[in-house]
Amino acid sequence: MQTTEQLQNILDQAIQNLTFPDQPKHLYEPIKYIINLGGKRVRPLLVLLSTELFGTDAKEAIHAAMAIEVFHNFTLVHDDIMDNAPLRRGKATVHEKWSTNTAILSGDVMMVEANKNLAKVNPIFLKDVLDTFNTTAQGVCEGQQLDMEFEQRDDVSIEEYINMIRLKTAVLLGGALKLGAIIGKASEKDADLIYQFGENIGIAFQLHDDILDVYADPDKFGKQVGGDIIANKKTFLLLKAFEQAKDENLEALENWTSYKKFDVREKVNAVKQVYDTLDIQNIAKASMDEYLNKALALFKQINVSDEAKFNLLTLTTQLMAREY
Amino acid sequence: MQTTEQLQNILDQAIQNLTFPDQPKHLYEPIKYIINLGGKRVRPLLVLLSTELFGTDAKEAIHAAMAIEVFHNFTLVHDDIMDNAPLRRGKATVHEKWSTNTAILSGDVMMVEANKNLAKVNPIFLKDVLDTFNTTAQGVCEGQQLDMEFEQRDDVSIEEYINMIRLKTAVLLGGALKLGAIIGKASEKDADLIYQFGENIGIAFQLHDDILDVYADPDKFGKQVGGDIIANKKTFLLLKAFEQAKDENLEALENWTSYKKFDVREKVNAVKQVYDTLDIQNIAKASMDEYLNKALALFKQINVSDEAKFNLLTLTTQLMAREY
Repeated sequence: MQTTEQLQNILDQAIQNLTFPDQPKHLYEPIKYIINLGGKRVRPLLVLLSTELFGTDAKEAIHAAMAIEVFHNFTLVHDDIMDNAPLRRGKATVHEKWSTNTAILSGDVMMVEANKNLAKVNPIFLKDVLDTFNTTAQGVCEGQQLDMEFEQRDDVSIEEYINMIRLKTAVLLGGALKLGAIIGKASEKDADLIYQFGENIGIAFQLHDDILDVYADPDKFGKQVGGDIIANKKTFLLLKAFEQAKDENLEALENWTSYKKFDVREKVNAVKQVYDTLDIQNIAKASMDEYLNKALALFKQINVSDEAKFNLLTLTTQLMAREY
Repeated sequence: MQTTEQLQNILDQAIQNLTFPDQPKHLYEPIKYIINLGGKRVRPLLVLLSTELFGTDAKEAIHAAMAIEVFHNFTLVHDDIMDNAPLRRGKATVHEKWSTNTAILSGDVMMVEANKNLAKVNPIFLKDVLDTFNTTAQGVCEGQQLDMEFEQRDDVSIEEYINMIRLKTAVLLGGALKLGAIIGKASEKDADLIYQFGENIGIAFQLHDDILDVYADPDKFGKQVGGDIIANKKTFLLLKAFEQAKDENLEALENWTSYKKFDVREKVNAVKQVYDTLDIQNIAKASMDEYLNKALALFKQINVSDEAKFNLLTLTTQLMAREY
């Protein structure tokens, strides 16, 4: 069994080895650009860790891991167009650096590249791998659609929000783990358990993100604390606050989310104060813990030794503990 | 062996049977809309005809045919955004009817749907089918990129143009036929021959389109004759005319393609006159015939009876003879 560091080295090497044609230049340069912007490579790492969990050499799963990473980057390129985002990992997004048309088409060809990597998987697993990948990809698209629709709605429930983040974020973690499990020759039951583990842990990660965006230590947080509040982003915290707030708290929320012009610091403090009065941070933490505990209970049921589970559990802990 | 009409009925039924989730509504409604706009379903029909050509029941290839049709419709949705096209088959394009974001994301999920259909192919052929499909899809994206780049360039050669239409239009015909051949258990040699046949016939079709756009009978042509001239579209005819023109003919082309304001009829007549002086129609026809003859010579080499080849040859003839 290889260490997580060894697997990360295998991944880095495989990403270096991804080659794309030189021409047409404007089709393939954006792909190299976005893939080399970096990132933590969590998703492909999950594929490899899952394969090793079931006692199979991670190298067997390297093409599936690349498929997941290229697909993930494809979603970033297209989501950034739709979200009108100027920056990604501190650099210009593809549609900003080139053009929207280039970002659409380079994204499309990345989806094809993801599928090309997938087709290199051992043919014994191919059908299962494709079905899992396609279901995952479809879920991610549905999640993005719901996320965009929620921006236009003011009646989004917590249940709907959880379903949206499940689709937009969590199914890809579940899908990555399940691909690794299939290639690792896991039983159907174990493959399903690790998928469910991934989905629940993914929801917990997103809730953690929602909390950090408001309550992170500004010195450790990589971006502006309160960014979600400033943008009226319908996070778990804002939705829960609207659900719980009455009288002056409700009025404060309604006012601050309706102002077109405002002092940024003043808005963040005012909304945060409503959150504090309503104990929103703890409610969010309780919900996060619920998904985390559900994930861990599912993980426990997987029929391999605790020793084999150590690396994946360590990574999960590290990801949950991040404060930046 | 089934008649082309019977195969068309199978196709219509299969398209009716394509089902998509109800929610999120704005993700899936555009897919139903674009697929039900109609069209001649030539590409999926080529899949089925090719399977039957090699003595296998077309029903074996129905999922591959659906994958090709859904993929083709995906390219229409994204190309229409990039080309800023308001109409498709006389109806509003997806980005006009909904929004650009909806068109991007519905297109993305159509690509996934195409892959889902592909994954239903008999696993014996799956690896080959995926490789052919992915190579084809990548080529189509490269063709669209080149087409967009050519709009910004004034030094496009005939050779580059032929390569662009090969990628944008012809590889999908070749790919459709090859998919049918793989599922029809054709030899590798025959699968390659029918692919090459498709590519060459595709180039001939596009050259035919270029000619018709200028020289079609206005009463039979479905759109405005001269549309390519009005839009300065770099077709085979315009590129060849620029290549051949000297003195006053060159001057006329340069002037008419540079005017921002002009009388439409006057421009069409003036450019057409240059074409006529330079015998461009016949040069284009000669080039078209070259690709057509190359296609037919390749088709002849395929190792099945002339009787089995009859339906595919008839369809090819009908498509080459269209004047609308």
